[in-house]
Amino acid sequence: MRIAHVAPVATTIPPPKSGSVEAMTSLLTEGLVRRGQDVTLFATGDSTTSATLHSIYPHGYWHDANMWPWELYEMLNMAAAVERAADFDVIHYEAAYYPISLAFTRLCRTPIVQTLHHSPTEAEVALWCHYPEAAFVAISREQERLLDGLNVVGTVLHGIDTDSFVFREKPDDYLLFLGRFTEGKGVLQAIEIAKRVEMKLILAAAEDDYYRERVAAHVDGRNIVYFGEADFDAKVKLYGGARALLYPIQAREPFGLVLAEAMACGTPVAALDRGAVREVVDHGVTGMIFDDLEHMTNDLRRVFNLDRRRVRDRAVERFGAARMVDEYLRAYARIVENRRDR
Amino acid sequence: MRIAHVAPVATTIPPPKSGSVEAMTSLLTEGLVRRGQDVTLFATGDSTTSATLHSIYPHGYWHDANMWPWELYEMLNMAAAVERAADFDVIHYEAAYYPISLAFTRLCRTPIVQTLHHSPTEAEVALWCHYPEAAFVAISREQERLLDGLNVVGTVLHGIDTDSFVFREKPDDYLLFLGRFTEGKGVLQAIEIAKRVEMKLILAAAEDDYYRERVAAHVDGRNIVYFGEADFDAKVKLYGGARALLYPIQAREPFGLVLAEAMACGTPVAALDRGAVREVVDHGVTGMIFDDLEHMTNDLRRVFNLDRRRVRDRAVERFGAARMVDEYLRAYARIVENRRDR
Repeated sequence: MRIAHVAPVATTIPPPKSGSVEAMTSLLTEGLVRRGQDVTLFATGDSTTSATLHSIYPHGYWHDANMWPWELYEMLNMAAAVERAADFDVIHYEAAYYPISLAFTRLCRTPIVQTLHHSPTEAEVALWCHYPEAAFVAISREQERLLDGLNVVGTVLHGIDTDSFVFREKPDDYLLFLGRFTEGKGVLQAIEIAKRVEMKLILAAAEDDYYRERVAAHVDGRNIVYFGEADFDAKVKLYGGARALLYPIQAREPFGLVLAEAMACGTPVAALDRGAVREVVDHGVTGMIFDDLEHMTNDLRRVFNLDRRRVRDRAVERFGAARMVDEYLRAYARIVENRRDR
Repeated sequence: MRIAHVAPVATTIPPPKSGSVEAMTSLLTEGLVRRGQDVTLFATGDSTTSATLHSIYPHGYWHDANMWPWELYEMLNMAAAVERAADFDVIHYEAAYYPISLAFTRLCRTPIVQTLHHSPTEAEVALWCHYPEAAFVAISREQERLLDGLNVVGTVLHGIDTDSFVFREKPDDYLLFLGRFTEGKGVLQAIEIAKRVEMKLILAAAEDDYYRERVAAHVDGRNIVYFGEADFDAKVKLYGGARALLYPIQAREPFGLVLAEAMACGTPVAALDRGAVREVVDHGVTGMIFDDLEHMTNDLRRVFNLDRRRVRDRAVERFGAARMVDEYLRAYARIVENRRDR
């Protein structure tokens, strides 16, 4: 199949450090190429891929204050794929911010499908519903529920590169919080739990205003330790050494990539029951899901007792790239067939 | 000619209060219809026009915090015109922020032309230069100079509705500053001049942080008077009563609508020689252009002595809608012909 894969143009594919959309885009592209698909990746010129790279920019706007307004750069990158529509059977747009490809849906014979990477508001969905023919892939059933009235052609949980998340059988003796410092991610709740169970907690995320204003006061360098922002290798080490990943998430998120990543290192997770958590965590196998902090605190030791080898195996099975690539290929086939029928 | 005129969708066409792009869009649309052109205006549903109105939104995003991100609303409004491209001989996009229509240039047989309403940066122009076929209308030679390398098919100074700017022969005894309170508009310089010549100065603009931090301390309610934001009727009265409009502009602006408006009321202008000022003001007829504040202060009384009837007549001749409509029709004809030749 001739596939145009349109990435965000903020930074390289794969990303230098953080960037979940970019990481997932790279993983899917490489997986499709390995299956013998003819993939053209629309991304910045400094990207690395085994697909054919089509770049209209040498680098991304995260690295160049002159690239403003960034929205226009995203639009023109999408347009570059649509301009070559006749070369492709399907155009797959990674809607990192919002589905600008809606503007092209009716201008293009080649079917366009977009993967959404955020939880849309009702007003967003109401707008998008004016394009009932536009195809969406949801990244969880949690997100799919929000897309009521839209043409959702598949729900595909993200994959991760499980080979590079190294399994570790014997962890050290700490808890881990990894993610952005925001209200929604629940870092203050993670700190509260660590204090209650009297265990060391490592916080790994980029320093920001929320950290300085709300988090820093709790950091004592002994029980509550601030690591900073972890690059990939550091992240894998931090996961592997943790007795458990704490995920007392407050917001309803459409996915939770850190859950899959921790699990791939053999580290079980302790998560609150919000958003897509139930779809990512197998309760009693790869972690435990709690209704509230009280239960999480009381039963945390049961999380430590989960079999780390089994955590890893289940993560590979459920979040390996293979499953994601299969499911996207099925979604593409479905869209192409629908288009042919019309 | 079948013309699609694509307006910004921030508010109504014409605008309820301020909004120079919206005012100019309305004026051009109504003028084209009066010439018997077949115009379809792509604008919000609460707009008022004698053209055919094509609305995909009931109202604009300035009035609805739910309409976010606004960029997508602008894009889809432009797309709505492109989806109907076969119905039009030309699509004219008012690029209030940036030319998103570039994304459609190669997807559409009908030629697209965009009027730019800001002074672009070098980085913006470098990006747009990747679309050498895309047609632009500049709003002044000052702006045109910045568009080096682009396909500028015409330079058309804005028009205003000169009938509604009432001529006043005998003014009161004050100076006027009208415009946003920003560094670039030169309000502090206007205050300095008024103090030096010991005349009353009225400031008319919406209150903002810059006003509170930098301007308010100078306002004494007698010599320096703050009027607030003027609606249309108040604006016309303020212009008509002024001995002169002070325009000690600091930024290089691509046009200066207040200059044309004041002149249409018979009020001469005292302007610094920056940006498009020389193209809008006829030195010695509709106002005087100065190199610096010193000269403006010393020669201000020569501005008062200009013949107000002549100021008005020249403004009607140069900035009446008729001239603008003529020039746009010529630009459209040129684009359509070029497209046919290719």
